[in-house]
Amino acid sequence: MGLAEGVLKGDVRAVAKLIRSVEDDLPEAPEELAKLYPYTGNAHIVGITGSPGSGKSTLVDILIDAFSNRNKTVGVIAIDPSSPFTGGSILGDRIRMQRHCMNNNVFIRSLATRGWHGGLSKAAASVIHVLDAMGKDIILVETVGVGQGEVDIINAAHTSIVVLVPGMGDGIQTIKAGILEIADIFVINKMDKEGVWEIKAEIEAMLQMNTYSPGSWRPPVFLTSAVADKGIDEVAEGICQHKEFLAASGKRDVHLRERAKRELTETLKSSFVDYVFREMDKDGGLERLLDDLAHRKTDPYSATADIMRKIIPEGGFRSS
Amino acid sequence: MGLAEGVLKGDVRAVAKLIRSVEDDLPEAPEELAKLYPYTGNAHIVGITGSPGSGKSTLVDILIDAFSNRNKTVGVIAIDPSSPFTGGSILGDRIRMQRHCMNNNVFIRSLATRGWHGGLSKAAASVIHVLDAMGKDIILVETVGVGQGEVDIINAAHTSIVVLVPGMGDGIQTIKAGILEIADIFVINKMDKEGVWEIKAEIEAMLQMNTYSPGSWRPPVFLTSAVADKGIDEVAEGICQHKEFLAASGKRDVHLRERAKRELTETLKSSFVDYVFREMDKDGGLERLLDDLAHRKTDPYSATADIMRKIIPEGGFRSS
Repeated sequence: MGLAEGVLKGDVRAVAKLIRSVEDDLPEAPEELAKLYPYTGNAHIVGITGSPGSGKSTLVDILIDAFSNRNKTVGVIAIDPSSPFTGGSILGDRIRMQRHCMNNNVFIRSLATRGWHGGLSKAAASVIHVLDAMGKDIILVETVGVGQGEVDIINAAHTSIVVLVPGMGDGIQTIKAGILEIADIFVINKMDKEGVWEIKAEIEAMLQMNTYSPGSWRPPVFLTSAVADKGIDEVAEGICQHKEFLAASGKRDVHLRERAKRELTETLKSSFVDYVFREMDKDGGLERLLDDLAHRKTDPYSATADIMRKIIPEGGFRSS
Repeated sequence: MGLAEGVLKGDVRAVAKLIRSVEDDLPEAPEELAKLYPYTGNAHIVGITGSPGSGKSTLVDILIDAFSNRNKTVGVIAIDPSSPFTGGSILGDRIRMQRHCMNNNVFIRSLATRGWHGGLSKAAASVIHVLDAMGKDIILVETVGVGQGEVDIINAAHTSIVVLVPGMGDGIQTIKAGILEIADIFVINKMDKEGVWEIKAEIEAMLQMNTYSPGSWRPPVFLTSAVADKGIDEVAEGICQHKEFLAASGKRDVHLRERAKRELTETLKSSFVDYVFREMDKDGGLERLLDDLAHRKTDPYSATADIMRKIIPEGGFRSS
């Protein structure tokens, strides 16, 4: 039985094996992913982002329970070296979160250490497809939310949640850096800490500056204490409402097309570069070009234009 | 006078304008960058990475002085939304760091807010070229060091510095996530804090596990207090020693080739995708394909193979 067939049957070992081949960029991975593609597009993808220490792992941990209670199957992808899901953080957290391993409806995977050297967002997108094809209703993607790769991942989510904590001084800074635009839901975690109302007021003030036309989504702001399991059900409810909003407004279809375009772009890019380098390697042309670039005898822009001229058919696409 | 000519003459307004067109991905940017390319490859690029709050901005701030005192011209690129260089952080820091604006040998640029939505590492690589062509001896690139884009930037540096602080509990976690492999120099900042010896011992223990063959570089561990200006000159000296090591060991040339290959890869990728989408847009083929992908009538892998067949010349590169 192929890996894709195993994934579709819910075989956890096939899932783990396919994810490993995705991470290691093995040649069979695209083929298996292609077989899974028809079965994807059904899961609701939730990106959860916040600085280390914002308690987003604990939030994810409790959200798993909240969705399990609603009879939803859950997949979790943790992309944060310090996440307890990835084996970082303190032992108590780790043990608590491992309780989900006993639940067949929950699948948790970390992309932390391996993702560093490959293409993080490409790997994450593929793993999302795997969990999607596996039939998970909800896929929670936990990221630190800094860096381009991570922003790409958040963009791939249907619902983006930004987790802030009082008194960390990062609230408004983070928002300034572009997070406001991507947040569908704000969560102020550690609600029992001092400064919670100030940060809520700051977010509300910023939301106020936007004009939300009727029928558009105004990000709600939830207060939670993930450790004390307070306010989590409201967040789960908010996610469900945002899901319904996307479906009703037609935004879910737009999102599907945008993701398809991003994925097509990525596969086109890697196929092309693989082809060019393979072709140039045949007569040592690649090494010569790299020498010329290193010695500044040419530049990457002129070299690219030159290569394109040797490949691009005159008069448009060839009929195949 | 073109922008490239202005940059080569050290005209700061031309530099700022070119960097803006790079960030905005304007069509004239590649042309101007191509003109600058022959004048690049001379600067020593130093990546400085550490979590928010590790004091890496203050370290960069004082390093500017250290290199200025050694008659080196310095360029700074800050890629961190919370960096004082970017206008984040507390006012005192910001004002202190703005003193460098009066120094003609120092050029500071932030990529923080804009970098979020473009290609961060691509923009950073281009800005490095601009500062390099401008004649800066040392280019300090400050990043939070999380996320793929940032790792790419750190990989582009000649010398990578990882800044840790005692008692933040992130030391070993961060290192686990792959930072050990990229660090050429470790800096433990806030050396007056409790726990400094523990973290130093941890790093030394990990370095011990590696076997360093004679003639290879063993990352030194420096203790600093950036606020109190303690230990900074040793770091500057360490950077200079690493620079000499790279030149003497031939690693500088390897690095130059690797960067050239990465840049070539990037320009090839964008040229190809631009071409494909432009060509397919002519008869609405792109929209139809995206529809098919969204409705799972095909998958990105098969679609890519199909497109490649229509473009790639039979029998290898055409002679141009």
